[in-house]
Parts: sequence; C-alpha cells; structure tokens
Amino acid sequence: MNIGILGTGGVGQTLGAKLLALGHHVLLGSRAAGNEKAVAWVQQHGGGAREGSFADAAAFGDLLIVATLGTATVEAVQQAGAAHFAGKTVIDLTNPLDFSQGMPPTLFVGLTDSLGEQVQRALPQAHVVKTLNMVSVNQMIDPASTGGQPDMFVCGNDAGAKEQTTQLLRDLGWQRITDLGGIGEARATEPLVLLWVRYGLKHNTWGHALQFVHA
Amino acid sequence: MNIGILGTGGVGQTLGAKLLALGHHVLLGSRAAGNEKAVAWVQQHGGGAREGSFADAAAFGDLLIVATLGTATVEAVQQAGAAHFAGKTVIDLTNPLDFSQGMPPTLFVGLTDSLGEQVQRALPQAHVVKTLNMVSVNQMIDPASTGGQPDMFVCGNDAGAKEQTTQLLRDLGWQRITDLGGIGEARATEPLVLLWVRYGLKHNTWGHALQFVHA
Repeated sequence: MNIGILGTGGVGQTLGAKLLALGHHVLLGSRAAGNEKAVAWVQQHGGGAREGSFADAAAFGDLLIVATLGTATVEAVQQAGAAHFAGKTVIDLTNPLDFSQGMPPTLFVGLTDSLGEQVQRALPQAHVVKTLNMVSVNQMIDPASTGGQPDMFVCGNDAGAKEQTTQLLRDLGWQRITDLGGIGEARATEPLVLLWVRYGLKHNTWGHALQFVHA
Repeated sequence: MNIGILGTGGVGQTLGAKLLALGHHVLLGSRAAGNEKAVAWVQQHGGGAREGSFADAAAFGDLLIVATLGTATVEAVQQAGAAHFAGKTVIDLTNPLDFSQGMPPTLFVGLTDSLGEQVQRALPQAHVVKTLNMVSVNQMIDPASTGGQPDMFVCGNDAGAKEQTTQLLRDLGWQRITDLGGIGEARATEPLVLLWVRYGLKHNTWGHALQFVHA
C-alpha cells in the first residue's frame, strides 16, 4: 500500500521505516519538498521510501498518517489540500500538547473538543481515525517491547477506516484494540498523554504503555 | 484511626466496611443524620461503625474521605463545615461525571481545573489528596482482584497527607503508587474515568484497572 505520512520528526521517520519493512511504500511529507531530514531518511532506506511536501504525501497515500506536532496539525492538513484526503483513511496520532507553561505539558484542546475532531472538521470528506497518540513511537511499532500487552484504542466515524486502521495496528504488533466509537471519543483518549508524560517523568522511563488489567 | 466518609452510596459503604475490617472506626456521613442506608450499614457492621451528618463525619474523622457523587461534592464539603477539615488529610476520590448527555458520560470540569482543586479551594486549610477516582470500589479495596498490579496515583499539596494516603492505599493492597505532584495534577487523572467507563462498556467488565507496562 502507498502510505503518506505528514511529519518528518522522530515519529514519522521511525513509523515510516517500520511501514517500509512491512512492505509498504511510504512518502514522508514536510512543509516543503526537500526537507533535510526527509531526504536523509530516503537515502537511508531507499526502495519504497520517498519524500515531498504535505500535498505530495496526501496525494501519494492510499492511507494517510498525520504525525506532526499537535500545534501544527490542522495547518498541515489544510496546507496539504483537503481534496487529497477525500474518501481516504487518515490516521491521526497527534497530541494537542501545550508546553507554553513548561513541563509537564497541558493540552490546548479541552474536554469539549479534541484535536481528532479538529482534523475531521478540516477534512470533511476524509475518514479520520484517532489512535496511537498515547505512546511513543517505540511502542507504536513494537508494543511487546513493554513486556506486556498494552491496550490500544481507535475512534472514528467510518467503520471501514477503523477496520483498516485496526489491521495496520495488528501488523505493528498490537493485540488488544478497542473501538471506542466516533471521532468524538478522542476527547477520552487525548488526555491520556498527560498521564503518560507524567508517569515517564516520575519513573524515568519512556518505554511504558497503558494496559487495562482485569480478571 | 477515626475515619469520616462523606457519602453513603456503594463506594462509601464498601470502602467503609473494608476500613472497619482494617481496624479503623468509621462514620458514614450523609446530608442529614439517620440516612436509611447509613443506619442499615451501621446495624450490619456494628463495632466501630457509626453514621451521622456530613458535619458529624468531618468532625469525627482524623482523616476524611469524600465519596459523594461528583455533582454533590463541593456542596457536601461546604455543608460539612470547612473548619472541621482544617489540618486534616482529605482523600477526594470523586469524579466530575456529567451524565446530562446520557452514556457514556463527559466531565463537567475541563482541563483547566479539576474537582480535586475545587475541593481544595472549598477547604483551604485541609490537605486534599486526589486518588482512587479511576476505579470502582471493588478495585479500590482489592486491586489484586484485577489479576494484575494496577497503578494508582496520588496528588496533593501536602507531603505528609500524601504519605498518610499512600500508607492507607498500601493497607488496601495497592503496590504501585505514583506521587504525581500537587493537587493540580488531578487534571491529568480525573479524565481517566472517561476511558475507564468506555472500556467497561465495550468489554462488559467493571473489574478493570489501569496498569502501565514497561520493560
């Protein structure tokens, strides 16, 4: 499958490399084609690896992944051109993190909205699925690295897009995936990053993930 | 120790019974003394079990536990009389749940405030500690019933009150307890109930609790 990733940071690069290893073709998109990090990533991985603008990524992908900083997310998808996303599954793994007060961060979207919903409103013809936002990229691509079987959540308005996302999550190694409902349920999952960061700071680990235990 | 519990619902009754079994004296407080459920609870448990008004509970306890509905929490502690709480540890395990839109619930406090902070503001001389709000009472008193070692979090402005709360949590069976910082960190833990409820609805379980897994 052709996958476009918006965002060339650590998440985009590492997740993109994993998707290449799974046999997909991946285009890393940035504000402008020729981004230094994206070019280096293509040189390192070759084969199905490409780079370009946000619009290039959105046009290339049969499936899109939004992996920008939360503060840049809505602008990035708008810059990419909403028409490129029409009818496609758009996995939004961004977090509305606000570091303006220092560490630990707060969120710039409250409990009456979510960044997932903002992405969906910016891309009304796309099928946005919120997932993976409450772990670091190392757990995204290898949940078993936690030593447990962490839970993952998907929410979105389109059943087919959630099925496609769930299959991709299984390919990444996720075994416990819960469909929470519509994209509005991102209001329940986006705040998890607050606790995830705080737990990491207190325990000096960034290799943790959330699991519900029950008899 | 003398423990006052504000709230005579399932949480207050079951947690109170466990605290009696641990050797404490417990007074269940309600809006008015003579609450039918509280009287029946005293008759069932005898010994160190007592009942009375919110004010009776707050005056009786060396340590207080607020276990009302979230919508009634601030009014309950105000009705009890702030002076009764001065200098004492006040464990707030309430959730700002809003069922006005039906199930699943939302929260009536956003990410720029928390119910824990509201309780602290209502009781400026008390040492409020937020904890236990993201599990049901069956896990509160028996975390091992989950089959795992779930995580618990405490936050509050007074170190001594958090130590006392942590010891009580250990007596209840909690082994993994993280001090997140001041009472403002309740903004990170109160939203957890949103996910807890949704997971329970999807998996038809109310015996679950959150655990961070990491290598």
